[in-house]
Amino acid sequence: METRGEPVAKSKLYSLNSGIVASTTKEWLAKRGVTVSQIAELVMFLQQSYYPSLTLEECEQNIEAVLSKREVQNAVLTGIQLDMLAEEGKLLTPLQEMIENDEGLYGCDEILALSIVNVYGSIGLTNFGYVDKLKPGILKVLNDKEGEQCHTFLDDIVGAIAASASSRIAHRKQAEIEEVIGPPLD
Amino acid sequence: METRGEPVAKSKLYSLNSGIVASTTKEWLAKRGVTVSQIAELVMFLQQSYYPSLTLEECEQNIEAVLSKREVQNAVLTGIQLDMLAEEGKLLTPLQEMIENDEGLYGCDEILALSIVNVYGSIGLTNFGYVDKLKPGILKVLNDKEGEQCHTFLDDIVGAIAASASSRIAHRKQAEIEEVIGPPLD
Amino acid sequence: METRGEPVAKSKLYSLNSGIVASTTKEWLAKRGVTVSQIAELVMFLQQSYYPSLTLEECEQNIEAVLSKREVQNAVLTGIQLDMLAEEGKLLTPLQEMIENDEGLYGCDEILALSIVNVYGSIGLTNFGYVDKLKPGILKVLNDKEGEQCHTFLDDIVGAIAASASSRIAHRKQAEIEEVIGPPLD
Amino acid sequence: METRGEPVAKSKLYSLNSGIVASTTKEWLAKRGVTVSQIAELVMFLQQSYYPSLTLEECEQNIEAVLSKREVQNAVLTGIQLDMLAEEGKLLTPLQEMIENDEGLYGCDEILALSIVNVYGSIGLTNFGYVDKLKPGILKVLNDKEGEQCHTFLDDIVGAIAASASSRIAHRKQAEIEEVIGPPLD
Repeated sequence: METRGEPVAKSKLYSLNSGIVASTTKEWLAKRGVTVSQIAELVMFLQQSYYPSLTLEECEQNIEAVLSKREVQNAVLTGIQLDMLAEEGKLLTPLQEMIENDEGLYGCDEILALSIVNVYGSIGLTNFGYVDKLKPGILKVLNDKEGEQCHTFLDDIVGAIAASASSRIAHRKQAEIEEVIGPPLD
Repeated sequence: METRGEPVAKSKLYSLNSGIVASTTKEWLAKRGVTVSQIAELVMFLQQSYYPSLTLEECEQNIEAVLSKREVQNAVLTGIQLDMLAEEGKLLTPLQEMIENDEGLYGCDEILALSIVNVYGSIGLTNFGYVDKLKPGILKVLNDKEGEQCHTFLDDIVGAIAASASSRIAHRKQAEIEEVIGPPLD
Repeated sequence: METRGEPVAKSKLYSLNSGIVASTTKEWLAKRGVTVSQIAELVMFLQQSYYPSLTLEECEQNIEAVLSKREVQNAVLTGIQLDMLAEEGKLLTPLQEMIENDEGLYGCDEILALSIVNVYGSIGLTNFGYVDKLKPGILKVLNDKEGEQCHTFLDDIVGAIAASASSRIAHRKQAEIEEVIGPPLD
Repeated sequence: METRGEPVAKSKLYSLNSGIVASTTKEWLAKRGVTVSQIAELVMFLQQSYYPSLTLEECEQNIEAVLSKREVQNAVLTGIQLDMLAEEGKLLTPLQEMIENDEGLYGCDEILALSIVNVYGSIGLTNFGYVDKLKPGILKVLNDKEGEQCHTFLDDIVGAIAASASSRIAHRKQAEIEEVIGPPLD
């Protein structure tokens, strides 16, 4: 509590609330039109040929696990915030124009996405690049340049979440195999 | 030119002006209190023991070369924009509080900085981490939490520019050595 | 100068020869069956729809520029060396088996490739992931698991070189546009 | 089982044994002279001023958790393998000389280290750079160029493991705080 006449350093009054960071991440994704179920379809698109018995429910569980990571939450919040500010025209020139128009030589959106992919390791890089180029499902909707919304950061972020969930699934499926049949003799 | 009654796609009217991106990068650094000469002192701090004849002028030339790279300009503009918006209280909760207070578990500032360092290769990573921890010179000023300004992104970005210039110098000095004494026999 | 009877630290006798690093990079790529012309076809595959007048010669020039970067040379040499050692069965268990079989959960090949892509900025990430998944042209040949050769690292490295050259082209083409028509009014 | 006369693709006979990857990682670290207790001292060096009650036992537990990650195991095995081959003179020129002499312009050691740090997020970058520059404790021993052993990769890898464990501790300590005092009111 601040006492009159005594300056209090900003940091004294601040304390991180992890629960709010996590819940806001989900709220903002929803508000920007992205559901876990849509991301699950991207994961299915990426993984079904490797794991034919993979279910959408499993994909959703893996996406939830990805979204529970702090590094992922930070990237989602920062990216969506920049998209929203660009939409409202509140960024300064020339950043405003570069983000608003998803300028090809502007790569900070890919950088934030990479920070999401890296949490689950480099094996996710290929899947990220693949969906980011093909833009299946929800990525096509987000990437539609004709609407009033700006999703320069969000489409890369959603692709990165799908790629990370795919990496997580690859690790889990391997663990399942080794548990069932036991480790190979050597 | 937009004709009445005809909707024009945003992207049709947009065209990137690289000169403005470059000049705005320098303007924003200056406006936020960072001069090339101050960054040169960081480079000198990092490199003087390896190259005793290194001059501040050489450091400045290498910083200018780093600042001419598009990837660097994008990171500088994006980071400073987020700092300024946090200062004005225009970000949404909880991102506003995390950036305003340079939250330790928020790492998007390090991520943008890493994208600068990477342009000159992984040998810059160590120098970046070192100045980011020690906060010599201008980094100490930027990192002062008592003032009204928020430099959560800028201090990492300035450290990354100094680390990148150091990497560039290491490459140049090697080229000079090989030119003067000739390649080693073998 | 070495005096008889006195041990000399290894580093005293060593001096980097940049010319040999550069020339060995090209030799090893050739020896492993990869030509600049084949990489140029990957670049054409990635860029032709954006720049219909792009020529294979331009692609080759951009690949040569990418290959002249030290960070790229280091990654090429390290990756090919590991491939060759795996082929000869000279790595230790279980690394030998993971590299020999291009294990899906082994990602050090993607990591070295990423260090190549990063030199030309994050805009190359998408192109890297795309060709790494689709495996067009020479990548299909390298990725053929039936032969005696092991290209676990090389296929990712070649995809990364093509993605980097694509990024370099995107930057150059923008510079050309701005030079010809002049910067847009603002 | 291979039937006479029928060629069997390499991949058919291969199956990943995660337990062996994990146990070999620990064996190789031990064989190269690195104990979990020595890494714990690096973590203590990095974190003690932030968490005065931190114990070496807690540091060791966090290091064990870091070492249980596949991406970390892959980087440790690959880096140590290259160090050992360089020591035995089994790499080809000029890679042999660059790794043997820890060439300053060779950065693949930092790249593998970065892949370890990234798993626990970008907040570890600063700690990695800091210990990699200062070389406290075991890092000084590993970095001693006079001995017969080559630890070009291992010193960066050990610094990265310490930085990752530090990041993990920062996340855990925050969770403890929020659990004890409850989330802050807002």
